[in-house]
Amino acid sequence: MSRSLVYQTDFGISDGAVAAMYGVALKVDPALAIFDLTHDIPQYNIWEASYRLVQTVQYWPAGTVFVSVVDPGVGSSRRSVAVKTAGGQIVVTPDNGTLTHLKLLQGVTDARLLVEDANRLSGSELSYTFHGRDVYAYTGARLASGQIAFEDVGPSVEPASIVELDHVDAVRSGDAIEGTIDVLDVRFGSLWTNIPHSLFIGLGVDYGKRVEVAIRNDTREVYRNTMVYARSFAEVSLGEPLVYINSVLNVAAAINQGSFARAYNIGTGLSWKIAIRRAPRIVYD
Amino acid sequence: MSRSLVYQTDFGISDGAVAAMYGVALKVDPALAIFDLTHDIPQYNIWEASYRLVQTVQYWPAGTVFVSVVDPGVGSSRRSVAVKTAGGQIVVTPDNGTLTHLKLLQGVTDARLLVEDANRLSGSELSYTFHGRDVYAYTGARLASGQIAFEDVGPSVEPASIVELDHVDAVRSGDAIEGTIDVLDVRFGSLWTNIPHSLFIGLGVDYGKRVEVAIRNDTREVYRNTMVYARSFAEVSLGEPLVYINSVLNVAAAINQGSFARAYNIGTGLSWKIAIRRAPRIVYD
Amino acid sequence: MSRSLVYQTDFGISDGAVAAMYGVALKVDPALAIFDLTHDIPQYNIWEASYRLVQTVQYWPAGTVFVSVVDPGVGSSRRSVAVKTAGGQIVVTPDNGTLTHLKLLQGVTDARLLVEDANRLSGSELSYTFHGRDVYAYTGARLASGQIAFEDVGPSVEPASIVELDHVDAVRSGDAIEGTIDVLDVRFGSLWTNIPHSLFIGLGVDYGKRVEVAIRNDTREVYRNTMVYARSFAEVSLGEPLVYINSVLNVAAAINQGSFARAYNIGTGLSWKIAIRRAPRIVYD
Repeated sequence: MSRSLVYQTDFGISDGAVAAMYGVALKVDPALAIFDLTHDIPQYNIWEASYRLVQTVQYWPAGTVFVSVVDPGVGSSRRSVAVKTAGGQIVVTPDNGTLTHLKLLQGVTDARLLVEDANRLSGSELSYTFHGRDVYAYTGARLASGQIAFEDVGPSVEPASIVELDHVDAVRSGDAIEGTIDVLDVRFGSLWTNIPHSLFIGLGVDYGKRVEVAIRNDTREVYRNTMVYARSFAEVSLGEPLVYINSVLNVAAAINQGSFARAYNIGTGLSWKIAIRRAPRIVYD
Repeated sequence: MSRSLVYQTDFGISDGAVAAMYGVALKVDPALAIFDLTHDIPQYNIWEASYRLVQTVQYWPAGTVFVSVVDPGVGSSRRSVAVKTAGGQIVVTPDNGTLTHLKLLQGVTDARLLVEDANRLSGSELSYTFHGRDVYAYTGARLASGQIAFEDVGPSVEPASIVELDHVDAVRSGDAIEGTIDVLDVRFGSLWTNIPHSLFIGLGVDYGKRVEVAIRNDTREVYRNTMVYARSFAEVSLGEPLVYINSVLNVAAAINQGSFARAYNIGTGLSWKIAIRRAPRIVYD
Repeated sequence: MSRSLVYQTDFGISDGAVAAMYGVALKVDPALAIFDLTHDIPQYNIWEASYRLVQTVQYWPAGTVFVSVVDPGVGSSRRSVAVKTAGGQIVVTPDNGTLTHLKLLQGVTDARLLVEDANRLSGSELSYTFHGRDVYAYTGARLASGQIAFEDVGPSVEPASIVELDHVDAVRSGDAIEGTIDVLDVRFGSLWTNIPHSLFIGLGVDYGKRVEVAIRNDTREVYRNTMVYARSFAEVSLGEPLVYINSVLNVAAAINQGSFARAYNIGTGLSWKIAIRRAPRIVYD
C-alpha cells in the first residue's frame, strides 16, 4: 500500500493551484491518499510553515510524505531537498528554513538533494514559477506511491547543512523563564511560546496558582499582569486570562473565550519576548 | 471495509490543529477515508455546530462516524458522548448542546458516555486543551475503522439526557406563521427559518403569490415587506426578494443574487423572529 | 476501480452545503475518492469558474469527473450538461458559460444534455434551489463510480452549442501585443493575461530584457511602466515588478513578494486591457 501524501503551501485554496497539485499526484498514482496540512500559511512566511510541520508531522504514520511549498526564492539557487525525520516521516521542500523546527526539535536523520531536472513533471519545462506543481507535488507523489525510493531523489547531503532560520531558546533567568512568542493558535488568538513544559516546571508553580506574565516587543513593554496557571480554559472565568500547557507541550497564554493576541495587539517572532515568574503573594495586613 | 470519518470543528484550517486530528486517525488506520463537514463554525457557537450536523448527517451513509468539536468547556465536567441517529450515523462530541437539532429533528436512538481515560491517545496525558485530537479524533477513528464497537465507548446513557440548547418551535398564530431565524446560508446571506414546509403550506399560498414577511429583533421591527413565494431564485428579478423552501425543506428568505442578511443587518438566534402571512390584496377602486 | 470525483462551487466551506454533496456521492458509492477544486469562486462568477477548470482539468487523469456548480440560474430554463474534454475528463455543470475556456482552449469532444428528472436524488423533489446536491453531485457520483455511462446522462447535443461567455483573443497590433487580464493569482495578486507564450515570443524579447506594460480600464489608463521579462520572481529585486510566463503558459505581471493587483487597484475581465511592447531603449547622448 502507498503512504499518505500531505500538502502544505501559502497558495490558499481560492484558485486552482492546489487542485493542480492534486491532479499531478493522481496522474502519478490514481489510488494515492492525499491530504492538506494547511494552505493558509501567510505568504512567504517560512517560519510559520516550519512551525506547522513540527506541530503535526509526528502525529502521522511513519512513511507519510509531506510536501511543503512556501517558496519566495523559486527560481533562485536555493536548494530543494527531501529529508527523513526521526519519526520516519519524509518532507519534500525548498531548503529555505522550512525545516528549522523539525531539525531542532524532532531531528532530521537523512537528507537528499532534490535534483530538479530529474524530478520534474514532463512538459513543464517552460513553467519556472510553480515548482509546487512541477517538482514538489510530482516528487512527493512518486515517493508516496513507491515509484521511487528516498535514495532516488538525489545525492545525500549532511542533515547539519539544512538551512535554519534564526531562533533563540527559552532560558531560566533568575526567578523567571524567558522565551519568545513563536506563533498563534490562529482562530483563538492564544499565544504559543517556545518555553517547554519541562523548563516551566522548574518554577515550581502548581495548577491553580498565579504567575506573572510580562510581554515585550523590542524595547516596549506591552503587557504585565498576573494570571492563573490552569490545566484548561474551563478552570478560569469567562474572559479571564490563563497560562497553560498547550497541545505541543509548551507554555501558552490565552483568554478564556477571548483572543489574547487581539486584546493586546500581540504579534509573533523573535522580537516578541515573554517572561513568566511566580506571582508575588500580596498580603494585606 | 471501514466507514467514513467526518470532522467538524471551530478550529479553522489555517494552523495545524485539523491536520493533527487527521494524522491521529490515520495512525489508528492508514486506510481510513476522512472528510470535513466544516471547520469554520464560529468560535464556541454550539448552536451552529448543531445545525450543520442536522443539515448534512442524513445525506451520509449509515455507519458514517462524525466527530464534532466545538468545545468551550474543554476541561470542565461536561460529558463526552457517542450517539447513534435514527439514520444509523454515529456522532462523537462533547455533550454541550451540539446534538440539539439531531435529537429533535432526526432522533437519537442510542447514546454512550465516552469515558475519556479509556479513549485517549496514548502519550497525550499532559495535554488538557485539545480533546479534538487526543480524545474525539482518536475515538472516532477507532469506531470508523471497526477497532472498537459503539458499545465499547462506554456505558449506555438515556438519549433523553442528551443536552439541548434553548429552542422554540415555529407556530401558526392566527393568519400568520411565526418562527425564528436559525442560521444563514453563509456565502449567500439567505435567512433560514425554523418554519417547516409542512407548517407553511397551511397558509395556502401558491407558488407565484405574494406573502408578507415581518422580522423583529427583540422589541425592534427590522423589516416588513411583501415578496413572491417562488420555487427558486430565477423566478424573480435580479435583486428582488423572495420566500422559498430551502434544501432542508424549511422556509427561507433571500434576495436573488444579493444578501438579505447584509442588506438589512439581520442576524440569527432566538431573538430574531420572523412572521409570514398571505399578503393583503391591494385593490385600487 | 472508480474514477476521481472533483467538486467546484461558489458555496464556500463554512456551512454544510459541500458536505451534503460529499454525503450524497458516498451514498452512491462509499469507496469514491472525492476532491475539491475550489469552493471559493466568487458568488455567481461563471467566468472565474470557467477559468479554474481550464487551469486544472488537464492535470487530472483521463476519466476524472468534475462537478462545477456556479449556478445563478438554478430553477430557470438553463440546460444542464455533461461534456467530455479532449483530454478525456468529464465535466457536469449548468450550461451557463462555465465551459467557455475548456471549449475554446482544450476542446469539448462530446456533450450530453443532463435530463434532470432522470438524474435526481430520490426524495429531493421539493428542493428547487440545490441542484448541486440533488442533481450534479448525484450524477457526478454515478458517473465516477461507473453506475452509469457518459451516454446514459441524456441525449447527445452539439459541442458547438455549449454556451460561451463573451471573450476576446489577444492580438499582435503593430509593435505591441494586446490582451485582457483574465484572472488573478488570488493570494499573490499577480495579473494573469490571455496572452499566450506563443504570441508573446513574436516580440522577440529575451529573458532579462525590459518590456513596457500599459494597463487600461475602459477609457482610463491605470498603469504604464517598464519592467524586466524574467523566468521567475527571484530574478528581480524584492518589490520589483516583472513580466513572466505563468503556470498555464500565458503572460503574467507581478511584483516580487508584493501584490500587483492591490498596488494599482487592478481588476479582471474584458474591460481590463493590457498592452506589452519591447521597452524603448533610452540613450543619453
